[in-house]
Amino acid sequence: MCWNKELIQEIIKQARREDLAWGDITTDNLIESGRKSEGIILAKEKGMIAGLPVAELVFQQYDPRIEYLPCCEDGQTITAGQELVKLSGPTAAILRGERVALNFLQRLSGIATQTNHYVKLLRDYPVRVVDTRKTTPTLRVLEKYAVRVGGGYNHRMSLADAVLIKDNHIKAAGGIANAISILKKRLPHTVKIEIEVQDLPGVEEALAAGAEIIMLDNMGIEEMKKAVRLIAGKAIVEASGGITDQTVREVAATGVDIISVGALTHHIRALDLSLNLL
Amino acid sequence: MCWNKELIQEIIKQARREDLAWGDITTDNLIESGRKSEGIILAKEKGMIAGLPVAELVFQQYDPRIEYLPCCEDGQTITAGQELVKLSGPTAAILRGERVALNFLQRLSGIATQTNHYVKLLRDYPVRVVDTRKTTPTLRVLEKYAVRVGGGYNHRMSLADAVLIKDNHIKAAGGIANAISILKKRLPHTVKIEIEVQDLPGVEEALAAGAEIIMLDNMGIEEMKKAVRLIAGKAIVEASGGITDQTVREVAATGVDIISVGALTHHIRALDLSLNLL
Amino acid sequence: MCWNKELIQEIIKQARREDLAWGDITTDNLIESGRKSEGIILAKEKGMIAGLPVAELVFQQYDPRIEYLPCCEDGQTITAGQELVKLSGPTAAILRGERVALNFLQRLSGIATQTNHYVKLLRDYPVRVVDTRKTTPTLRVLEKYAVRVGGGYNHRMSLADAVLIKDNHIKAAGGIANAISILKKRLPHTVKIEIEVQDLPGVEEALAAGAEIIMLDNMGIEEMKKAVRLIAGKAIVEASGGITDQTVREVAATGVDIISVGALTHHIRALDLSLNLL
Amino acid sequence: MCWNKELIQEIIKQARREDLAWGDITTDNLIESGRKSEGIILAKEKGMIAGLPVAELVFQQYDPRIEYLPCCEDGQTITAGQELVKLSGPTAAILRGERVALNFLQRLSGIATQTNHYVKLLRDYPVRVVDTRKTTPTLRVLEKYAVRVGGGYNHRMSLADAVLIKDNHIKAAGGIANAISILKKRLPHTVKIEIEVQDLPGVEEALAAGAEIIMLDNMGIEEMKKAVRLIAGKAIVEASGGITDQTVREVAATGVDIISVGALTHHIRALDLSLNLL
Amino acid sequence: MCWNKELIQEIIKQARREDLAWGDITTDNLIESGRKSEGIILAKEKGMIAGLPVAELVFQQYDPRIEYLPCCEDGQTITAGQELVKLSGPTAAILRGERVALNFLQRLSGIATQTNHYVKLLRDYPVRVVDTRKTTPTLRVLEKYAVRVGGGYNHRMSLADAVLIKDNHIKAAGGIANAISILKKRLPHTVKIEIEVQDLPGVEEALAAGAEIIMLDNMGIEEMKKAVRLIAGKAIVEASGGITDQTVREVAATGVDIISVGALTHHIRALDLSLNLL
Amino acid sequence: MCWNKELIQEIIKQARREDLAWGDITTDNLIESGRKSEGIILAKEKGMIAGLPVAELVFQQYDPRIEYLPCCEDGQTITAGQELVKLSGPTAAILRGERVALNFLQRLSGIATQTNHYVKLLRDYPVRVVDTRKTTPTLRVLEKYAVRVGGGYNHRMSLADAVLIKDNHIKAAGGIANAISILKKRLPHTVKIEIEVQDLPGVEEALAAGAEIIMLDNMGIEEMKKAVRLIAGKAIVEASGGITDQTVREVAATGVDIISVGALTHHIRALDLSLNLL
Repeated sequence: MCWNKELIQEIIKQARREDLAWGDITTDNLIESGRKSEGIILAKEKGMIAGLPVAELVFQQYDPRIEYLPCCEDGQTITAGQELVKLSGPTAAILRGERVALNFLQRLSGIATQTNHYVKLLRDYPVRVVDTRKTTPTLRVLEKYAVRVGGGYNHRMSLADAVLIKDNHIKAAGGIANAISILKKRLPHTVKIEIEVQDLPGVEEALAAGAEIIMLDNMGIEEMKKAVRLIAGKAIVEASGGITDQTVREVAATGVDIISVGALTHHIRALDLSLNLL
Repeated sequence: MCWNKELIQEIIKQARREDLAWGDITTDNLIESGRKSEGIILAKEKGMIAGLPVAELVFQQYDPRIEYLPCCEDGQTITAGQELVKLSGPTAAILRGERVALNFLQRLSGIATQTNHYVKLLRDYPVRVVDTRKTTPTLRVLEKYAVRVGGGYNHRMSLADAVLIKDNHIKAAGGIANAISILKKRLPHTVKIEIEVQDLPGVEEALAAGAEIIMLDNMGIEEMKKAVRLIAGKAIVEASGGITDQTVREVAATGVDIISVGALTHHIRALDLSLNLL
Repeated sequence: MCWNKELIQEIIKQARREDLAWGDITTDNLIESGRKSEGIILAKEKGMIAGLPVAELVFQQYDPRIEYLPCCEDGQTITAGQELVKLSGPTAAILRGERVALNFLQRLSGIATQTNHYVKLLRDYPVRVVDTRKTTPTLRVLEKYAVRVGGGYNHRMSLADAVLIKDNHIKAAGGIANAISILKKRLPHTVKIEIEVQDLPGVEEALAAGAEIIMLDNMGIEEMKKAVRLIAGKAIVEASGGITDQTVREVAATGVDIISVGALTHHIRALDLSLNLL
Repeated sequence: MCWNKELIQEIIKQARREDLAWGDITTDNLIESGRKSEGIILAKEKGMIAGLPVAELVFQQYDPRIEYLPCCEDGQTITAGQELVKLSGPTAAILRGERVALNFLQRLSGIATQTNHYVKLLRDYPVRVVDTRKTTPTLRVLEKYAVRVGGGYNHRMSLADAVLIKDNHIKAAGGIANAISILKKRLPHTVKIEIEVQDLPGVEEALAAGAEIIMLDNMGIEEMKKAVRLIAGKAIVEASGGITDQTVREVAATGVDIISVGALTHHIRALDLSLNLL
Repeated sequence: MCWNKELIQEIIKQARREDLAWGDITTDNLIESGRKSEGIILAKEKGMIAGLPVAELVFQQYDPRIEYLPCCEDGQTITAGQELVKLSGPTAAILRGERVALNFLQRLSGIATQTNHYVKLLRDYPVRVVDTRKTTPTLRVLEKYAVRVGGGYNHRMSLADAVLIKDNHIKAAGGIANAISILKKRLPHTVKIEIEVQDLPGVEEALAAGAEIIMLDNMGIEEMKKAVRLIAGKAIVEASGGITDQTVREVAATGVDIISVGALTHHIRALDLSLNLL
Repeated sequence: MCWNKELIQEIIKQARREDLAWGDITTDNLIESGRKSEGIILAKEKGMIAGLPVAELVFQQYDPRIEYLPCCEDGQTITAGQELVKLSGPTAAILRGERVALNFLQRLSGIATQTNHYVKLLRDYPVRVVDTRKTTPTLRVLEKYAVRVGGGYNHRMSLADAVLIKDNHIKAAGGIANAISILKKRLPHTVKIEIEVQDLPGVEEALAAGAEIIMLDNMGIEEMKKAVRLIAGKAIVEASGGITDQTVREVAATGVDIISVGALTHHIRALDLSLNLL
């Protein structure tokens, strides 16, 4: 799944702590510790499921004796009423963990569902839908995973793993060419340089200076087409800025390689799921 | 603001770490450390602002020398184009912190805006809109704050601070009356007991057993009205289950005291804001 | 047992780290790693045992291969010489963990023993003995557990889960009625409001304002009786302030519902226990 | 004061978190954030004060703007009614921190008071009263500090900083001489070797093997005297085991160098203090 | 300096904790807390200094009142006897922090010195000396900084920020072409792909598949020359494997772009420095 | 092995996190999760192995299903080409953990190898080679273990477990005799006092004041001999300061008991090892 599982476990630990605090005063006082139950996680609307292994890690933290058997896999399209997971184990632990497990599963499924909506819109274009750094604080690694599940691609994970030269950097460095040249001199040979440009002269300057990725920021459709022609494969072209499911096909038609969509993680609509004890 | 500020700082620390990782390779290599800038945070659409003190804590973690001057207060209605915050300080630190600060501010404002939408719908009813435990994992304390900013109220913060007896608890305890009676015997005198019921006989049993809050779970409007009449002020009445802005006025008209709405934090649409360096 | 076990494990981790530091230079250099032993934990005086599951978690942290078989249960009365636990496993790990396990077990048993002394004194009154926030820093959740083991009840766990309006709050809010009214407007419907009053007019004002719990702070016996009569079941009545085993029966006789006793956790006399290898 | 201040701050952080949780719902809703107050910490009984710098660190964690002016110093004898500390600063922060600060201060003062009671009993003997590892889990470094404040001395801080060979170690190593000889071969030259013996032959064997400290464990007074004569200054002599303020002078009279008393930290009676806002 | 300062502070915190433990029993008992001193950090041999800002952060953790005035900058060549830093402040804090500050400063200076030795050897070649992941566990971000100070360049910081396909990956993926093709399909467009090859056919296959960096692993000089000619600027060429200061010029002469040298961080010879109080 | 295994696991966790970050993008995308492999860790040069149990803990953190079978033991002399460990388990986890495991193993083996070189040089003298506090920040407990593996001995682990009075302490305390006398009055009876002296009058004063260990700091050979004669067994004698493998035999011949060598951990030359998948 391409994560460091330990990082996920720490996120879950935080989530568990904020929900459980020092104890579940309802369950702990009502459910005898020996009692066991079976349950199912059920879809209440259609969409794409993502986060099944995360929900499993959640229940494992509440009690490693909970058995968790998924009936489907991340990335599958599900329908209302479909059984997603069978659970069995200590009743009290299942009840304590239910809300936190669903909170993860529903959000991640919401992201995958939305990403997949964009991916399907662009099915007939050789273009990638990618995410941004506009993710929920503390949950980036999970949300970027959900984007991949939905068929999208990731942009950089953090400020440390790729360069993106923005307007303010350009101003501070005294222009596009200068900014690229400084970074080429200083950065590891393993790092790619991306630069955000606003217009065609910017594209030309970036290209000349050796940018490896050129981001067309909030450009009009016609200008984008010209930029793509200008770049002509000498750099990867990324379109960015306020792109929605209304406009995304038009953008794809310009011939860009990459379309980044903040809304993938910025507008989260949790998929409706529930857990029922049998 | 009713938080333990240190908890917020730890959430921010996590968010900063996932975004900054070991360093911002673009900014650190392009912006000289002595350079200073001024900037503003700007609204790009209308809504209700929430999280200004959180964004301030974010920038303080990046560099305590950043000056942060809000032009408005949490809970104010803002319009597109409005200046929200003036910033000044080290350019590099502002650029590093920008995305994380906005990620918090946009999400919390989105929650306040949506909550306020419900609150305004119910303006003429003596009823509270309250949130649920369906919050983003690790961010509950912030999201519940945004609900309060929006004019809503909080339900319990965690499993440890109030009792909510659900279906499964009732089954395990052998009925409503029994569940309430066990908890009355075991719980601190400072804890209130809420129970979820599905029908009028459930309401009657809960009332007789001394429930302090009765949650009408997914009940029809007519049944709710009967329940409210039955309870007649002897317990607080909470309506819950799939309530949307389409149905919430109808529910309020039944006379319930409290309406809990999962969507307040379950469907998050970040408010569009941006940070511009001057 | 009504705890978040993970929180207990973190407390134990702290305790283990302060005692073990980087290693046990005596045991590690003298005891071969393969050596196994059996041992017993023995009572050296009579009292009530509490903390057996905590001591088990302690030994598990030192070495999960240690077998830990309790011969009794938390809440049982024990006598001098009684065997409480049988242990077997790696000798070195048992020796390293011995002191920390006993430090927990002895203190918690001391608290349960003392609490039970009060509970027995009040056996014939319909009154609860409850604890306070005067607990040992970092060990509150364990000490409040020991109070429950001893037959006592808990007051609020933290400043976040129930309201207790004290003198200084009342002054700041401009009187009892005002303080209660502000809080009723702001607090979740799940939270109970308790207020501390010093005299009968205070009782009347609190009652009129809708206080759910009225704490009679350091009141004389006669005044308490009047207060109980005044309140007449319209609020829970709690007596508090310097109550000892000398005065507690007299207080109970006033008809209060709750007696809070700081000494339950403020004067800790560890029960004498020891661990012997066989 | 001989501590790593950062460790103390972490202990306080734990204590603050368990008491404050996500917020103080009484204070945060009643006290405006700008309000300031003055207060005093007052003795309500006589004893020896210890922990004033700890309480200061507590208030600093709640709000660095709180001014904290001690009127006396750790180790001073105080009387009922004496003012110990003057405080001024944000009312809300003082109220939030009050209980935690007092919980530390009262316990540490209780320990210093009791230690000083022993020290005064032995005023006319050239003997040290020392503590043991029977300290409250997680608070050892503070409790051992309180023992020093009271005029006592510390035994080892952890299992890592000095050797104490006990019965079980002796058995495992095949006798006293063998255990000492193994450790002399393995341990750093900076570490002292102490061994626990039960009888005079044990003393002789330990002495011959080069023990640097010999602990007389639960020996009778006459046997102790003989042991002291036998050792004759060739090792430090420590008496240990069930020594109380009833027996401690008799033990001191045997001529031992060191008397270790578990009760210093095992029976904690918090000194009665309070904080009053002016 | 291109770090997340907070990460460095956590490394220092660990280092401080292992050295200071619960307190400095020599200094704390001998030096009065009010005493102040001045001191200097002095070079005892020649080399290149690195880590001055790290040592400053160390002293700040021991006591923020220590003034730390560097007389030179990271990257300067220093001579035996040269004064590097002037310090003034609380004597006790300077003494406590001395060893930890020097331990960082000496190691980082050792790495910079050694890196610079390689850089100077290659002064007349258009080639970069780069480091590897063979760094001291927990100190990578600092050691890679010291390499940059010495005039070297960094290879990837972690397994997450660039791809390096090694032998075992190639086997598992069924060949060079296949491995590259899978990764091109899956990786973000911001990530560069490097592959390790052993021979010329490997070079050709990697080139054809679109590798962006080709690592010539343990190749002979003649074969390297052929590889460079074959690649002809279509990919970055990196030489790797057992390269020492004896062989590095010969490798550079082959025309490779990058030479990675494990020894930069694998063989650490601390530069001799000392701190003298005046 | 004389460690607190949990501390080692935390060091490994840090090391793993800095190397793995949020995921291994090469391995995770190329190696199917079900794939299993066998591998060996191989010596590529001769030396003394140390750290085998540490490398095992590393692999366990990456995946507890990895089987790790050492073919030799810490402290054994190994030759180039010798198989050290057989591994089997999930391919991806072995590849992820390889570098971190080797980074520990190679450094610790380098230290053991170098220590053993000194130990063998002194084989015919009754003297101990000991380490210093000049260890790699955050790795002290491991590096001191490697010294023991190599046949050396440890000096104090931290500032908290033994006293070493240095020049600056002596100045501050007003002379050698005074410093020793103050510490004797304040320190636990379990702590040994070591003092650093520069000349014979210093030796005499230290001896008269009751120093238990006298460190001859940077003394000439002839003066050392005189010091040894002067001390005549009344204190342990430690030689220190710039001692190398060129001078160490000469120093040993003076009759000192202890020779401390900073270079054991200050100049680290990682032993050449590799991991090959079969």
